Amino acid sequence: MAKAKVRVLVNGYGVIGKRVADAVARQEDMELVGVSDVVADWRVKMALKKGFRVYCSSPDRADSMRRGGVKVEGLITEAIKDVDVVVDCAPAKVGAKNKELYLKHGVKAVFEGGEAHETAGTSFVATCNYDESLGKQFTRVVSCNTTALCRVLNALNKAYGVAKARVTIVRRACDVWESHKSGVINTIVPELHVPSHHGPDVKTVLHDLDIVTMAAKGSHNLCHIHFCIVETRKEASKEGIIAALEEEPRVVLVRGQDGVEALNSIVELARDLGRPRGDLYEIPVWEESIAVNRRESYLMWATPNESNVIPDNVDAIRALTELEKDWRASVKKTDESLGVLSRLY
Amino acid sequence: MAKAKVRVLVNGYGVIGKRVADAVARQEDMELVGVSDVVADWRVKMALKKGFRVYCSSPDRADSMRRGGVKVEGLITEAIKDVDVVVDCAPAKVGAKNKELYLKHGVKAVFEGGEAHETAGTSFVATCNYDESLGKQFTRVVSCNTTALCRVLNALNKAYGVAKARVTIVRRACDVWESHKSGVINTIVPELHVPSHHGPDVKTVLHDLDIVTMAAKGSHNLCHIHFCIVETRKEASKEGIIAALEEEPRVVLVRGQDGVEALNSIVELARDLGRPRGDLYEIPVWEESIAVNRRESYLMWATPNESNVIPDNVDAIRALTELEKDWRASVKKTDESLGVLSRLY
Repeated sequence: MAKAKVRVLVNGYGVIGKRVADAVARQEDMELVGVSDVVADWRVKMALKKGFRVYCSSPDRADSMRRGGVKVEGLITEAIKDVDVVVDCAPAKVGAKNKELYLKHGVKAVFEGGEAHETAGTSFVATCNYDESLGKQFTRVVSCNTTALCRVLNALNKAYGVAKARVTIVRRACDVWESHKSGVINTIVPELHVPSHHGPDVKTVLHDLDIVTMAAKGSHNLCHIHFCIVETRKEASKEGIIAALEEEPRVVLVRGQDGVEALNSIVELARDLGRPRGDLYEIPVWEESIAVNRRESYLMWATPNESNVIPDNVDAIRALTELEKDWRASVKKTDESLGVLSRLY
Repeated sequence: MAKAKVRVLVNGYGVIGKRVADAVARQEDMELVGVSDVVADWRVKMALKKGFRVYCSSPDRADSMRRGGVKVEGLITEAIKDVDVVVDCAPAKVGAKNKELYLKHGVKAVFEGGEAHETAGTSFVATCNYDESLGKQFTRVVSCNTTALCRVLNALNKAYGVAKARVTIVRRACDVWESHKSGVINTIVPELHVPSHHGPDVKTVLHDLDIVTMAAKGSHNLCHIHFCIVETRKEASKEGIIAALEEEPRVVLVRGQDGVEALNSIVELARDLGRPRGDLYEIPVWEESIAVNRRESYLMWATPNESNVIPDNVDAIRALTELEKDWRASVKKTDESLGVLSRLY
């Protein structure tokens, strides 16, 4: 008898939700039951166009969704009864409220980085700490920035031991589709509290890492950029760091000399790859930026904030349901299904 | 008999030159002989409007300047015979060529940060190493970024000893008046070579400092921003760092909670101060960004790239000519003449 597919519902069809839904729909061991939202805007209509079933996440919004022209299958409170895992991609902090529903129905849930670690109890980066989420009811896929930090630092940690990581993050002003809301024009807006929340967040995955982050918002809307200083326990070499990053899943090397000179060239490269929405699941590290000064190493990378956590969401479903007990098996499945590469070009 | 004024010519009337000319004209112990350039654009016409004498820096450009409507007093090669100090504000690397002229005429010269340290032999930040330029023929006022780094790190070095400084610099895309040339739109362009040139440049002034810098260009055209991590020899405290910065000339504290939230609010604040061109000579450090984690301290500041080196240019003239032997006396004179503040508001 064929193993039953894990039934997945995506609650919240925004930047992350729409990408998770697409990714889940591509998995042979999962079935996308549908997506759930509270509005009838163009995004939700695109879900219908793809043939996804659309549910309503709030009893008082179903009528307005229907009036807005969305065929609503029913309320999430009904749909959830026949679901194994909800991926909660609701806006930040709404997930914490939704948790009540998941507890009530005994359904597993994956939360996103906008929720506190405590909401899930366990945080998740597939290549770092998959095992911690095995069989749990809840986990939390950490934010794009935290995921990028964990992937790269995990590679260096395995190769040399990371004694200290100090990172400056310049974030995009806002998501591409909401540029009119950012108000960040012709300036840089520093986050004046040091450390920024990213450092402590990394420790929810790489628990013992000594990491401090500083952050700011730029006036661009494409990707974050990270400037990283790492003190290694063992002496590193540029060649050794390159080898460690080449071995690490979901981390890739790019080179300015190949024309990948800035965040915008990375985005254009991703568009050329032909992926849905020009998404990049990998963390592109600039090879030329890697420098070693005795125990200190330096590197710079881009964090594709809309899409780098998508494969981890798929893996988180497998960890919670124990579809795969070995992280490498899950990552391999996910990466093959999404076309994740070890070299972009 | 009254002491003769030092006769100063400004060669190159661009972003820095026009500001240096204004600043020199305000000094009681200096006389602005005139300014020299090679074009007849609006900038040079503004010099005439101010009543500055305009010379031509290149024999083959005098006719075109005159045809362009500029009253040219003569060639720099003539003017220089009656000058004590030239402040060379020509475009980067042109100063090195001009050096021949200054050597030939035995005239002293101040170069800018666009020139190599070797061109002058000595580099200069008034509050850090004034004495090294006393009586010399040449010195070099370092760039805006290097000046900012030297001022802030000098304060911390005096208070605690700086064992290491690690700084990420996000530069403005280009100067305000040349935005059409930058090509940096909606992105961040990393400088892929680590360390960036700023760190080594700081060592031309603070010779023994262990400093590494990483840099990138943002898509804004207002000020650079620095994210700094300092390992101190003695344990620091936030209060102690604030006190050290308050004592340091040309460094000021600003606060996000007072509405100074980003680079653009600093520029607006500077405009409100009523200075020429809304210039800021001080380095504004965000008080909230100062954090101390055992031996490590963190701070963020803005570097007003058009104007922060202007007072140092005035002091460099005094150092070369030994108008003042004590750096504090020169800095006091300069700061009073320009209205430099220890608090902006």
